[in-house]
Amino acid sequence: MGTRPIGIFDSGIGGLTVANAVLKASPGEKLIYFGDTAHLPYGEKSPETIRRYSQTIAAFLLANDCKLIIIACNSASSVAFEAVRDQAAEFGVPVVNVIDPVVEFVVKRGYHKVGVIGTRATIGAQVFPQKILALDPKMDVASLATPLLAPMIESGFVKGDISRLVIENYLEDPALEQIEALVLACTHYPLIKDEIENFYAAKGLQVEILATNEIVARYVHQLLEEHGIQRSSENKAIHHFYVSDYTESFEQTTRLFYTKEVPLEQSFIFREEASDPEEPSPV
Amino acid sequence: MGTRPIGIFDSGIGGLTVANAVLKASPGEKLIYFGDTAHLPYGEKSPETIRRYSQTIAAFLLANDCKLIIIACNSASSVAFEAVRDQAAEFGVPVVNVIDPVVEFVVKRGYHKVGVIGTRATIGAQVFPQKILALDPKMDVASLATPLLAPMIESGFVKGDISRLVIENYLEDPALEQIEALVLACTHYPLIKDEIENFYAAKGLQVEILATNEIVARYVHQLLEEHGIQRSSENKAIHHFYVSDYTESFEQTTRLFYTKEVPLEQSFIFREEASDPEEPSPV
Repeated sequence: MGTRPIGIFDSGIGGLTVANAVLKASPGEKLIYFGDTAHLPYGEKSPETIRRYSQTIAAFLLANDCKLIIIACNSASSVAFEAVRDQAAEFGVPVVNVIDPVVEFVVKRGYHKVGVIGTRATIGAQVFPQKILALDPKMDVASLATPLLAPMIESGFVKGDISRLVIENYLEDPALEQIEALVLACTHYPLIKDEIENFYAAKGLQVEILATNEIVARYVHQLLEEHGIQRSSENKAIHHFYVSDYTESFEQTTRLFYTKEVPLEQSFIFREEASDPEEPSPV
Repeated sequence: MGTRPIGIFDSGIGGLTVANAVLKASPGEKLIYFGDTAHLPYGEKSPETIRRYSQTIAAFLLANDCKLIIIACNSASSVAFEAVRDQAAEFGVPVVNVIDPVVEFVVKRGYHKVGVIGTRATIGAQVFPQKILALDPKMDVASLATPLLAPMIESGFVKGDISRLVIENYLEDPALEQIEALVLACTHYPLIKDEIENFYAAKGLQVEILATNEIVARYVHQLLEEHGIQRSSENKAIHHFYVSDYTESFEQTTRLFYTKEVPLEQSFIFREEASDPEEPSPV
């Protein structure tokens, strides 16, 4: 029953839905969140670049004595998990991504057909179908890129005609016909889980909506118990939320993703660029 | 009548609408385009960061002998124009941004009320209202953030119910009532110019839609003439399109923005970060 924090990182603030779910499942825990807002979105970046960023952030979280690291970003989970896991293993720190616990959950359920929706990058990488089929080659996995959903949510269109129409437009895709469950493979989508459920309810279809943040939070809770590293809730937890580039707009948008007010702190772990090599870079 | 190219840069590929318009207005010109895809979107970054990136790119364009630099990005035009202008002045190279020619145009027209739409960052910075009011304090300038438009366009929703509904939702905002012209203050918006015109036509309203790419292209054409630095169209122009981070998804999206096929080239001018300081960085 230590006092060490859990480290969570994402390319931006979407991972706050994971942070939220983790605290709901494990209320005594203390969090250090890192949103790499200077480099978002990761989805459009090359695997090498995403790995480099992820390892820099992981080093920061390890230096801050985190007992567990959650990669709350689908792109980083896809391409940087092994690198970060090996890096953290030297400190005896386990690493959780937002893909494997979900894949495990889906395979255990034994669906005939499951749908996966996410950004263009997540779907293009085909990680969910590949990992699910590796464990259950008979499952039918239909994946669909739904690139407008995340910006729609960030723009505040969560309820109402526009979000309903955009959700309909995507979910009526023939690829998703006859699915028994739908994986929301993007940290933003838990915010429209109700609307997605309404879509299927209105059609009289029974489709289980799998919010990855909730599945990951349950997985983390279990992992903390197994390792006996839950935090004692006797000491009040002061969470820290770092961003690599601060703007007021981020501060505002965090309110969509996190139930409590989040005071963002600027971090300088990226000593980036320098057109002028003589100029000292912040570290 | 030299052979030197025009340099154009943007945080991403949106600036290709400016490149398109420049070649339409000045068909003999040769272009070097730089899309800073490793760092997009600039709108969410701090002014210092945007200035640093812009100056690195400008140095690259100057090193490639550009005779004129166009900053085809609203955020960089707002906060990095003076820095880039001073940097290029040492080489006798003029710099054009995507704000001042539009402000000049609007003020010349002498509207009573003009609307400005753009991303949250562009509108939040208040640059258009400030610059217009500095020249014509009596003009009524209504600006409105329309954050879903750019991702909507990038997601391919240009025509159809969804884009119509999103456009309506924004343009019916009371702030924009009784405008005589609407400035499209985002490089993406020329792609929905027709839809925006249709919105007003359907209401029987006469609103002039000002696409900044066209205004800037006319301005550049005039500037080339004034300086006597047009390119002879006798030599076939081979354009170059660089991105700071290459992904297939960018290559695909360029087709939305540029009428011809664009072979993107990866550039390594940003020798970025490095969690391991001993690792040599690409320059």
